[in-house]
Amino acid sequence: MNLEEIIAQIQPIDQAWVDKARQYAAQLAIPPRALGRLHDMAERLCGIFGTLEPMVSPKTFLVMAGDHGVVADGVSAFPQEVTGEMVKNFLRSGAAINALARSVGAEVIVVDMGIIPDVDLSCHETDHLFRSCKVDRGTANIAHGPAMSRQQAGQAVLQGFHLAAELFAAGTRLLGTGDMGIGNTTPSAAIGVALTGVSADQMVGRGTGIGDEALAKKREIVQQALAVNQPDPRDSLEVLAKVGGFEIGGIAGCILAGAYYRRPVVIDGFISTAGALVAQALCPQVVDYLFAGHCSEEAGHRKMLAHLGLEPILDLRLRLGEGTGAALAMGIIEGAVRVFQEVLTFEAAGVSKNVAS
Amino acid sequence: MNLEEIIAQIQPIDQAWVDKARQYAAQLAIPPRALGRLHDMAERLCGIFGTLEPMVSPKTFLVMAGDHGVVADGVSAFPQEVTGEMVKNFLRSGAAINALARSVGAEVIVVDMGIIPDVDLSCHETDHLFRSCKVDRGTANIAHGPAMSRQQAGQAVLQGFHLAAELFAAGTRLLGTGDMGIGNTTPSAAIGVALTGVSADQMVGRGTGIGDEALAKKREIVQQALAVNQPDPRDSLEVLAKVGGFEIGGIAGCILAGAYYRRPVVIDGFISTAGALVAQALCPQVVDYLFAGHCSEEAGHRKMLAHLGLEPILDLRLRLGEGTGAALAMGIIEGAVRVFQEVLTFEAAGVSKNVAS
Repeated sequence: MNLEEIIAQIQPIDQAWVDKARQYAAQLAIPPRALGRLHDMAERLCGIFGTLEPMVSPKTFLVMAGDHGVVADGVSAFPQEVTGEMVKNFLRSGAAINALARSVGAEVIVVDMGIIPDVDLSCHETDHLFRSCKVDRGTANIAHGPAMSRQQAGQAVLQGFHLAAELFAAGTRLLGTGDMGIGNTTPSAAIGVALTGVSADQMVGRGTGIGDEALAKKREIVQQALAVNQPDPRDSLEVLAKVGGFEIGGIAGCILAGAYYRRPVVIDGFISTAGALVAQALCPQVVDYLFAGHCSEEAGHRKMLAHLGLEPILDLRLRLGEGTGAALAMGIIEGAVRVFQEVLTFEAAGVSKNVAS
Repeated sequence: MNLEEIIAQIQPIDQAWVDKARQYAAQLAIPPRALGRLHDMAERLCGIFGTLEPMVSPKTFLVMAGDHGVVADGVSAFPQEVTGEMVKNFLRSGAAINALARSVGAEVIVVDMGIIPDVDLSCHETDHLFRSCKVDRGTANIAHGPAMSRQQAGQAVLQGFHLAAELFAAGTRLLGTGDMGIGNTTPSAAIGVALTGVSADQMVGRGTGIGDEALAKKREIVQQALAVNQPDPRDSLEVLAKVGGFEIGGIAGCILAGAYYRRPVVIDGFISTAGALVAQALCPQVVDYLFAGHCSEEAGHRKMLAHLGLEPILDLRLRLGEGTGAALAMGIIEGAVRVFQEVLTFEAAGVSKNVAS
């Protein structure tokens, strides 16, 4: 199956089920729409799954890792080797995404989409939680030329698609996307500028915490990457190839898989949303299946979400990535489903209805 | 122990533990402060408990129920008997707070602080989840005179205090407040106007969903209640007695107990926050121990929270009460604690530190 065949099969969610769910919610012993966005979430899930009994467990995270040649130009506060070090830390369950995923009962699977080192699994007992889909050993420096070939961009997206497909086949009913890649706010910002039209000044932020001087330099590098590569915004696979990253492509593939297999996907912050921008440009219907976990502190994230038409569930000044904001949001989504499933109707509860209605 | 003795014993949280927690958090394999408000929450919990190993389970909700004489003036979209009907629904676990509390592993205890009917426990197997602390059979109509006597106001607060104290003694480490009482956004708004100085126009909202005409009437009733009763804003027990409610007093008592026993309390929406205003006016230090679960859709809630200096954790357009927003927020607080406790340090994880620091 190639990308065109996948995209051709993606359908909008089933509005008839959303409407049925809304009618059912009106009978629950709750004042009309008094649980606000929880109602909207539960009803959209009914539309996605095509049922009045949506379930969002098992939950799984795919944390996509990649390295970035542009780190050579000093865009990050952390050295490049941290990408591989953090992949190891995920595998020993010592990172924030591990803690937050445990908190909502989600499993974390780490994917080498294209980091520089090889992962030595011999020291970990968690090899079933790792997948190697290495497209290459890091991207080339986007400030001087394309990140990867068009063939590699397609490969990254398809790898993400097949990984997510495998999880859905094994039972996953709620997929979260996460990322690890020192320097990856730079390609994400470049994708954001290319696909939303927002300026680099507004789109580029401090990532893991660079100072004012480095921020100014990072903005220049994003502008340079776009000037050197001239990605065509009507061709999002070209945008991904020229200024993207392997993990961003993998995330775009996960999102296509959610829409293809009719499963909800919770995106995390700036990097995951760059992946969503690529996926949406390939196939606008994917947004129906997406939940925006949170709004990050990273400068352009709110603009990206606005472009997608997604309202974030949380806003807690996170700027970590890994999937952390999506994991926290899964708890809210779980709550929305439980209300829909477990609250009694006015009739069953013996509660009098609104006197005004 | 009377209220004065309780208040005299309440201390601010231990800033030395907050500082120690902040130093420890800086060693975790996370870019500096990259988890935003999660760090602040975890560190404040360390200050509250006086430890670097805060725990927030077991979690318990006290859902305080009361009836309101002012319902006779048409301030609510629902008839008065719904208060008692919903108390029964809580006891059969059929309400939204039951579903959301289950979702975060919290127990729900329902308290009759002053509803009109008696609760017949013979048809429920959950009598251990019910407490009767009935101060009276509903308040008097605040539009025409005081809601209750000053003695009853003190009794309501002390009952709440002792109930929460009992739970803390039995192990509760995170207490959530909830409410049920048809008409209770009206006394809550009156308390809000009296204690924050914000106008009735800004403070009064649609509650469970009244229309424009009823909203205008409700604003007039709040203004009338304040004009008739002339509560002294420097005397919050008088404010509670003149324009309050029994469940609001009970919630204020829970909040005092959290501060007295050094346990965190998560408040819910408009009614719980009216209780917090009463408690804060009695003893400003209580705010140190409070977490604002969410910002409600009810008009004046944001103003109340600003007066308390509390930033809500969630903003999901809820306007239900019962403790629902606090329950959802408990999942976020749990996540904050797990990150603090479970993430490895840079050193233990073998991850290189920030090159810029």
